[in-house]
Amino acid sequence: MKKGIAASKGYAIGKVFVQEHEEIVITDSKVTDVAGEQEKLKKALDNSREQLEKIKAKAAAEMGEEKAAVFEAHITLLDDPEFTGAMNLEIETNSVNAMKAVDSVTNTFVMIFDSMEDAYMRERAADIKDVSKRIISNLAGKGGDAFAITEENTIVVAHDLTPSDTAQLDRTKVIGFMTNIGGRTSHAAIMARTLEIPAVLGLGDITTSVKNGDLVILDGISGDVIINPSEDVIAEYKAKKEKFTAEQEELKKLIDVKTTTKSGKRIEVCGNIGKPEDVLGVIANGGDAVGLFRTEFLYMDRDSAPTEEEQYESYKFVLEKMEGRQVVIRTLDIGGDKTLPYLPLPEEMNPFLGYRAIRLCLDRKEIFKVQLRALLRASVYGKLCVMFPMISGLEEFMQAKEVVEECKTELKAEGKAFSEEIQWGIMVEIPAAAVYADELAKHVDFFSIGTNDLIQYTLAADRMSEKVSYLYNPMHPAVLRLIKMTIDGAHKHGKWVGMCGEMAGDEAAIPTLVEYGLDEFSMSATSILTAKKIILEQE
Amino acid sequence: MKKGIAASKGYAIGKVFVQEHEEIVITDSKVTDVAGEQEKLKKALDNSREQLEKIKAKAAAEMGEEKAAVFEAHITLLDDPEFTGAMNLEIETNSVNAMKAVDSVTNTFVMIFDSMEDAYMRERAADIKDVSKRIISNLAGKGGDAFAITEENTIVVAHDLTPSDTAQLDRTKVIGFMTNIGGRTSHAAIMARTLEIPAVLGLGDITTSVKNGDLVILDGISGDVIINPSEDVIAEYKAKKEKFTAEQEELKKLIDVKTTTKSGKRIEVCGNIGKPEDVLGVIANGGDAVGLFRTEFLYMDRDSAPTEEEQYESYKFVLEKMEGRQVVIRTLDIGGDKTLPYLPLPEEMNPFLGYRAIRLCLDRKEIFKVQLRALLRASVYGKLCVMFPMISGLEEFMQAKEVVEECKTELKAEGKAFSEEIQWGIMVEIPAAAVYADELAKHVDFFSIGTNDLIQYTLAADRMSEKVSYLYNPMHPAVLRLIKMTIDGAHKHGKWVGMCGEMAGDEAAIPTLVEYGLDEFSMSATSILTAKKIILEQE
Repeated sequence: MKKGIAASKGYAIGKVFVQEHEEIVITDSKVTDVAGEQEKLKKALDNSREQLEKIKAKAAAEMGEEKAAVFEAHITLLDDPEFTGAMNLEIETNSVNAMKAVDSVTNTFVMIFDSMEDAYMRERAADIKDVSKRIISNLAGKGGDAFAITEENTIVVAHDLTPSDTAQLDRTKVIGFMTNIGGRTSHAAIMARTLEIPAVLGLGDITTSVKNGDLVILDGISGDVIINPSEDVIAEYKAKKEKFTAEQEELKKLIDVKTTTKSGKRIEVCGNIGKPEDVLGVIANGGDAVGLFRTEFLYMDRDSAPTEEEQYESYKFVLEKMEGRQVVIRTLDIGGDKTLPYLPLPEEMNPFLGYRAIRLCLDRKEIFKVQLRALLRASVYGKLCVMFPMISGLEEFMQAKEVVEECKTELKAEGKAFSEEIQWGIMVEIPAAAVYADELAKHVDFFSIGTNDLIQYTLAADRMSEKVSYLYNPMHPAVLRLIKMTIDGAHKHGKWVGMCGEMAGDEAAIPTLVEYGLDEFSMSATSILTAKKIILEQE
Repeated sequence: MKKGIAASKGYAIGKVFVQEHEEIVITDSKVTDVAGEQEKLKKALDNSREQLEKIKAKAAAEMGEEKAAVFEAHITLLDDPEFTGAMNLEIETNSVNAMKAVDSVTNTFVMIFDSMEDAYMRERAADIKDVSKRIISNLAGKGGDAFAITEENTIVVAHDLTPSDTAQLDRTKVIGFMTNIGGRTSHAAIMARTLEIPAVLGLGDITTSVKNGDLVILDGISGDVIINPSEDVIAEYKAKKEKFTAEQEELKKLIDVKTTTKSGKRIEVCGNIGKPEDVLGVIANGGDAVGLFRTEFLYMDRDSAPTEEEQYESYKFVLEKMEGRQVVIRTLDIGGDKTLPYLPLPEEMNPFLGYRAIRLCLDRKEIFKVQLRALLRASVYGKLCVMFPMISGLEEFMQAKEVVEECKTELKAEGKAFSEEIQWGIMVEIPAAAVYADELAKHVDFFSIGTNDLIQYTLAADRMSEKVSYLYNPMHPAVLRLIKMTIDGAHKHGKWVGMCGEMAGDEAAIPTLVEYGLDEFSMSATSILTAKKIILEQE
């Protein structure tokens, strides 16, 4: 038996298919024919583009436009002057061969994205690696993406699974993933959860521990992998699998159920989204509302900030799709570990304690106002709540509201409509806001507790720092007290409190949060049904 | 009138002496005779050493051994392989001239130290710049340190004042400082406060705004500088000066006064120290106790960690000097912005939220135990309190106490004495500890609130980050609540609470802190008497 990281729930019993992991050796040889080498690169980029167009079409047909969008992003990368442009420059300046140029530009990008806390940003690193691998493969004359799975009940084993690997899997035949590397937030994990097939990742050497045709049991709950199990063990896992499937079917019945505790308190269970189209997953999983729309995603992967019109369309799309159900949109939270190419930020020794989110927006009002105007204009299409991130005191909220008033005045003068029913709230993610919640609650319409940051600051422990991440504990008594203080402070003034950090979807934490009186839980779409089930069981 | 930073209190009315600020131009010319250039450097170092020996002797005679120690440190720097060794290497490797080598090695060092929060470390940058300036001056054949002040009542005007400048000032003639650059924590400010003469720093262009012989009024309280004032203004300031002097005399009467509020509550007013000899300043200023001995200073400016014996001697020295009055010693708080050459730390994105202080000590028990053994052994010489920095929860305190028990067992076996009366406490500087204070108070003997960090974490604002330092506010209502929670939590279980952050010496904050019931205030020695006066006026 081997143990890995349980990355997507469920059980699979099937035959192994090992994806060949062909290492292409990249040499450091210098070239003299710069133009020739650049021409080679151009051809490899053209081939890559052609392949990606095909994969995109296949993905769109099989998984929907939403999942196909990633390949559009890959194609865009091929034309990105910062990316492929830098490769050409690398060949010219350092006389390296094309493969080396691709490799070194990729490494720079990946290093930046991989060090970020944000799962979205790390996923972005996976995209870059994927495209890079494709270009290098084309440079080596290997091209193509062979995934010749012919048998049903196949468990795919790979070193890692890239976005294009997963897009090409035959979903009628593949029942599970196992990889050498990766964790719960890696691309392979996210894809497995989206496809609802079990996955165990980070197994180290699984590609050499099994061979094609081996019978394997994959336990996506414990992370166990059993190679060539006995009949008894197979029978045991078949029973587990049936039970799990039945439970999943039960969960699906909760999609349209409005969640109330046994004592009759209605609790909203909502989804967090990054891109507008993520709203579809929230609806599919029975989300009562969107509890957090992280708008920074609209600002990423671009050369310039999104215009008011672009943002307006995104917000309108989400509000319309939710058909009158609440949508909580957080204003731009950039800075910290999230940067934008067109918005240079000062170098700081401790970016998490620095110039970010509302601090930046109040300082750069010209950026802030574009977003606020777009939000105001979109507000007529549904039930909009807007919240400001990183609020440490009343003054910042008041200043932000003043900018809102400015925008309203402008829009009125321009004859553009907006709703007067918007709720204005704040993220409670800085200890000061939690400690001072009862006073802040007099002025805001609602709170949303951002546990990821709140826990980090309360314990002064960066959860991305390997040496201190052990201190990051959502159930630390001081963290629980701050959450309680926030909820009590809001309720004292008749305001509601949501939670949109990871803790809201943490099965172990939900009972305590219900007991504390939390009104709204917002989490990744795939956790909604389980959360509903747990909440229904609480007093 | 010009306005600068009021860096040392008091008034001076006198004639200006402008220190010539001779810029030595450093060229980037390449050298071919490496050995010759290294020989030039050697001569400049020898000259520097000779000058420094003289200055040291003068300083020892005029200001005492304590102030002369800085020049011993300068002399040590001249032989430091990391410093002057690097210069020789720079000449060899990059064929630069000696002056350029000195300059570039200096810049690297200064950049590192200047970016640190710790005032001690920034003072260290001043030392390095001072030594570097001396070497370059000797390389340029200028040498010497002429400060030909002949007249009484002289106000010295300089671009900046280095430690060696201040050591050479004739204290019978100089009555004030003014500089172009520097702030409240710069070397010139610290020296002015030690010498008890008024200073206004950071005036921008004062060296060119005044000329030798100008009459000037220097207001070290408001930061105002009045050049060639009218008779009326002179009369006005003479009155102010008299009043101030009288007040200072009044303050001196408080040296031996035990501070109580009007309602009779006894409050300890104590001093913070870095080096053992700083205890003399605490005693001279009437400190009731040492409220914070920051032991990391014992670990700095060395090639290896101080031995148990060396630490024992330092702790014993302070305990003995305090003659039975309390000494609170904080265990090693390294990491964050404070690093040691012989203790490599992992690179972290947010060092303030990372591997430091008790986290490091519990992880590197071999380092921690040396200090604990030294503290235990020294405890027989006075009234010792030991506190652990960066405690976020009970478990860390319990783990630290376990290490203490291990050390006690060892010492018993070795037949070495220690006191059983030591008090064991924690720094409350992480929000979690303040929020959870009532529970922690059951287990610790005392708390000491470290406001510098507590404020940073509570507001998620790095006070060293130029862009967000405006958020750093000791009087933020959430900060005040956490302080109150800490005090109430401790008193509930009969424990005492001190404060050793800058807020404890902040005249505006003292009344509130007394009202909250703070039992002990610890601050820089020069603030003690004023704090005593304010506390005596409280109810």
